[in-house]
Amino acid sequence: MRLKAILVIADGMADRPIKELGWRTPLEVARKPSLNQIAKSGICGILDPISPGTPPGSDAATFALLGYDALKIYSGRGALEALGSGVKVLPGDVAFRCNFATMNESGVVLDRRAGRIANEDAVKLAESLQKVELKKPSNAKFLFRSTIQHRTVLSIRGPKLSTAVSDSDPGKTGEKASDIKPLDNSAEAKLTARITNELLHEFQKVLRNHPVNEERAKRRLPPANMVLCRGVGTIPNVKALSQIYAIKATCVAAAPLVRGVCKTVGMKVVDVKGATGTTQTNYLAKARAVVQTLRNSDFVLLHVKATDVASHDGNVKQKIEIIEKIDGMLGYLLNNIDPNSTYLAATADHTTSTVTGNHEGDPVPIAITGPYVRYDDVMEYDERSCATGGLNRIRGMDLMPILMNLLGKTAKFGA
Amino acid sequence: MRLKAILVIADGMADRPIKELGWRTPLEVARKPSLNQIAKSGICGILDPISPGTPPGSDAATFALLGYDALKIYSGRGALEALGSGVKVLPGDVAFRCNFATMNESGVVLDRRAGRIANEDAVKLAESLQKVELKKPSNAKFLFRSTIQHRTVLSIRGPKLSTAVSDSDPGKTGEKASDIKPLDNSAEAKLTARITNELLHEFQKVLRNHPVNEERAKRRLPPANMVLCRGVGTIPNVKALSQIYAIKATCVAAAPLVRGVCKTVGMKVVDVKGATGTTQTNYLAKARAVVQTLRNSDFVLLHVKATDVASHDGNVKQKIEIIEKIDGMLGYLLNNIDPNSTYLAATADHTTSTVTGNHEGDPVPIAITGPYVRYDDVMEYDERSCATGGLNRIRGMDLMPILMNLLGKTAKFGA
Repeated sequence: MRLKAILVIADGMADRPIKELGWRTPLEVARKPSLNQIAKSGICGILDPISPGTPPGSDAATFALLGYDALKIYSGRGALEALGSGVKVLPGDVAFRCNFATMNESGVVLDRRAGRIANEDAVKLAESLQKVELKKPSNAKFLFRSTIQHRTVLSIRGPKLSTAVSDSDPGKTGEKASDIKPLDNSAEAKLTARITNELLHEFQKVLRNHPVNEERAKRRLPPANMVLCRGVGTIPNVKALSQIYAIKATCVAAAPLVRGVCKTVGMKVVDVKGATGTTQTNYLAKARAVVQTLRNSDFVLLHVKATDVASHDGNVKQKIEIIEKIDGMLGYLLNNIDPNSTYLAATADHTTSTVTGNHEGDPVPIAITGPYVRYDDVMEYDERSCATGGLNRIRGMDLMPILMNLLGKTAKFGA
Repeated sequence: MRLKAILVIADGMADRPIKELGWRTPLEVARKPSLNQIAKSGICGILDPISPGTPPGSDAATFALLGYDALKIYSGRGALEALGSGVKVLPGDVAFRCNFATMNESGVVLDRRAGRIANEDAVKLAESLQKVELKKPSNAKFLFRSTIQHRTVLSIRGPKLSTAVSDSDPGKTGEKASDIKPLDNSAEAKLTARITNELLHEFQKVLRNHPVNEERAKRRLPPANMVLCRGVGTIPNVKALSQIYAIKATCVAAAPLVRGVCKTVGMKVVDVKGATGTTQTNYLAKARAVVQTLRNSDFVLLHVKATDVASHDGNVKQKIEIIEKIDGMLGYLLNNIDPNSTYLAATADHTTSTVTGNHEGDPVPIAITGPYVRYDDVMEYDERSCATGGLNRIRGMDLMPILMNLLGKTAKFGA
């Protein structure tokens, strides 16, 4: 029998005890029969995505949960998000996450999202910007693409580039954009900063009197008269999951950052109609896609972004509702997979506190059910119950070897 | 609200089960309502200061508990203790912990502490020794200081020195002192050994007929006619705590070694009247100093040496009494800090067995209480109860990131 595994990652689902919930966590309060079923029938524990006390980003945490040493390979967000948005970025390319934004005549940023500019406008502007030509000599080329609304990608390809450069995005309104600065003394960092600054300068010239912006002015919409860059990164050059474990690995995720990580490790990334990466995503459609995908895969990662969105908003009630919806997805999975051949693991990529609104360094709960796990006495799936489980406390990068070993896919070390 | 943290380290407080206590530990037998209160209201676990099975020294363990990788940075005791005793030692200086001692005419050590020579005598002798001049050419200078009683510091500063040299102290009476030997083939180790041997030789000449020793002979006190060296070390060049976490960090400790570690990581070290580093220390004065210090600090380390002293003496009864006094300190802290903004962690730097009289490699209990910890079901603070807690088993160097994350002071890794 071909053994298979599903790993469900609920983004930022773990939390800290909250006063308004009687010092319980959203997971402890939510009605979650399927998560509890996984805990009851399986083995539980707590997991430090990166290391105890370190608040992880979703990209670094997802690398870790896929078995990679994030501390060694992680090299920034921009390129991962670009790749996940369907922009062709290769290892070595240096990519920024960018926004169309609105500034006044003095260069002060008035709106970091240019009124959440509509896709059609953004696409037209991006096409014009792609025609800009770099004047100063270099062997670099660039690629500028619109993804969703104000979100764009700037990717630079060339032989001597570096990610050791600063952002231009001030991160808030009321301030001017900064020049991109080299963060070390390398010729690569200086060249990358020079090229990016030149591009941003030329972009402004094109945007100033662009017909799209003139049209927006008539509609009293803020002009997209600048591009702000941040989160520079590159695609780490890693061995594919399929190579490491001889498996077919698939990802069901809508969030571009997570899709980018999964593409980086060579996973097939499935598109699901109605999966949006928002709180309004079609949870059941994603669960159905997992069951379908599993027919031709050994390993499927299912990622849900919504829990993190509610957490960052400090919306405890919504977080609980989303956990209950995720529980519904898991119910569908439990009812539609073969329990004799399928392992199902449920975890989070990090704790997001609804009180601080930030990613936090607390561990996350992990539960694995399936035919041969050493089930423990844990009866409920939550942060504190799982801490008493049979897995004890593991690291994010331990999880994938554990799952792959259950599937008989890990190599013996020693003779 | 500005969040703060207090870390209480009771030196060698953890122990192993002892037959005369009905196979319980001193912590299990002691009356300790405040420690239990921390455990009950907080999250508990066990902690390997360095690694499972490794008996830690207090210096290495304190580095670890402050978040540093002791295995990488630790470079000997001498310089740390010197720094902690108020001697000006800089990174790069090679420092020995030394004793004034008494030998007979054949050079056999009769008393490793020269009759626990009084401070006034020791200071006068040290002043004379500081005047010795190195004869053989080198770019090195030295500093010789008396600290407490027989204890002195020899610190050598120069461009080409090494800590790869042996002790001269035989560690027991009835034997001769050894020459300092280079422990590797480097020119630096050879030079350091040569300089130190020359100094020790010159010191003996000065001490032989020193007026202080002639005066001691009249009082029938053993002469301080030699200097014994051991524990060579240097100050590791590390990033300050304040830089790593952007905090104000303060230390309340009397033991020179711990004060030296705290100075090395850039902490402010507070002097407390009556804090002696002995079993007779003024426990309450230290607790008061912590509460006062906390007003202008984000993080305060409170170290108590007495538990270790009783353990090395194999004095179980005294160890229990001291634990109860430490519990009193913690009671004062619990009553005088704001529970809505202050985290309080209690641990030990290592296990010291009252049976073997040695530091041992067993983990130590850890409990953290404060506003947003994931409190667990542990009701008592002791080695075995804490082992069932929500922190599970962590490493010494994990603790500081966990505490700093609770204070919102850790940087996100990834995006």
